[in-house]
Amino acid sequence: MREAYHEELAALCDALVEMARLVGSAIGRATTALLDADLPLAESVIAADVKVDDLQRDLEDRAIALLARQQPVATDLRTVVTSLRMSADLERSGDLAQHVAKLARLRFPEQAIPGDLHRTILEMGQLAQRLMAQAAEVLITKDIAAALQLEQDDDRMDELHRTIFQHLLDDRWKHGVETAVDVTLVGRYYERFADHAVSVAQRVVYLVTGERADELDPGTVAP
Amino acid sequence: MREAYHEELAALCDALVEMARLVGSAIGRATTALLDADLPLAESVIAADVKVDDLQRDLEDRAIALLARQQPVATDLRTVVTSLRMSADLERSGDLAQHVAKLARLRFPEQAIPGDLHRTILEMGQLAQRLMAQAAEVLITKDIAAALQLEQDDDRMDELHRTIFQHLLDDRWKHGVETAVDVTLVGRYYERFADHAVSVAQRVVYLVTGERADELDPGTVAP
Repeated sequence: MREAYHEELAALCDALVEMARLVGSAIGRATTALLDADLPLAESVIAADVKVDDLQRDLEDRAIALLARQQPVATDLRTVVTSLRMSADLERSGDLAQHVAKLARLRFPEQAIPGDLHRTILEMGQLAQRLMAQAAEVLITKDIAAALQLEQDDDRMDELHRTIFQHLLDDRWKHGVETAVDVTLVGRYYERFADHAVSVAQRVVYLVTGERADELDPGTVAP
Repeated sequence: MREAYHEELAALCDALVEMARLVGSAIGRATTALLDADLPLAESVIAADVKVDDLQRDLEDRAIALLARQQPVATDLRTVVTSLRMSADLERSGDLAQHVAKLARLRFPEQAIPGDLHRTILEMGQLAQRLMAQAAEVLITKDIAAALQLEQDDDRMDELHRTIFQHLLDDRWKHGVETAVDVTLVGRYYERFADHAVSVAQRVVYLVTGERADELDPGTVAP
């Protein structure tokens, strides 16, 4: 009984890691689709999100079954409840990757992102993917130092987000309003994606230390 | 024992209703602050969000304590777990109301929203507040028909969101890029706020019927 129990707890963690890997891959591929105006790649990202949603539903069902059957207490109980919260973060990250891919699809065969912003968007995409990979690792290792590092690394995302606004609000902006709208939304998608990765790591800190990491105040960079 | 137990369950529901009322009020006041460029009102919305965050933390702690002490099963267990998810929706809605207020503050004493979009933004704000009031009512009544109605009413939000994009992408747009960025973000905040209200109602449907309402795909209206 006890062994099955710990296997079930470990399975929740495995599912979270799998979700983090899927959405990390999704944001990477969505970024490529966006910058290369690659329609088949965008379509594949959009289609793949259902897997993340399925994993989340499955995780939720299993967490509830575990609570009902095993009636965990103390740390184990917090682990299960926190898993539910983390799965919501990861599911939402998948949606955001999908939004990036949908923008690539909407503008195809045009490029949604003007050339002078390619480098910034590429860095945002790579950073988002890296933060999610770090979150996945933190889920496995429960390494508090690595978890806290994520928050530091997220500062770079805020910088990049500010860079985007600088471009947008520069008098020399010559790409018109539609592109400004696209860039505004895409910037927000990456920023929120990164916030969710940080949030997953913070919840691990909470699990391990019992201390709530400071609540994020996402979106403060927004103009 | 049993009586205390049902009181604890009812207290979770009360806390959710209280959160829904606070964030409903917040989005209404944030909209007024935005349209009237009312700085003190914006500041009060921004400051009040901490109450929502506190309620959420408190609800989470109480839910975990209830799970540990009472070890509920079946419907009661689902109620507790779903309460956690709903509290996350409501907490996030509070953030979004705060974002609207922060934009009002950032542009003060200027008006962030140009006159020809006032009516649309006002309707979005009122609809957002109304949807959240309906969600609060559904939390109390567990009325499935009312819960499903919310999703219908949210269609209007999507229409309003489209109206905003029509304005933005009209060749006659004369308010510049900064305002376009502001309007894009504000439109997204209202749309997401409404999604969270709908999500709360859908979770009540799930609790009552055991059937998951179709997952939302928020953001599909985005360009």
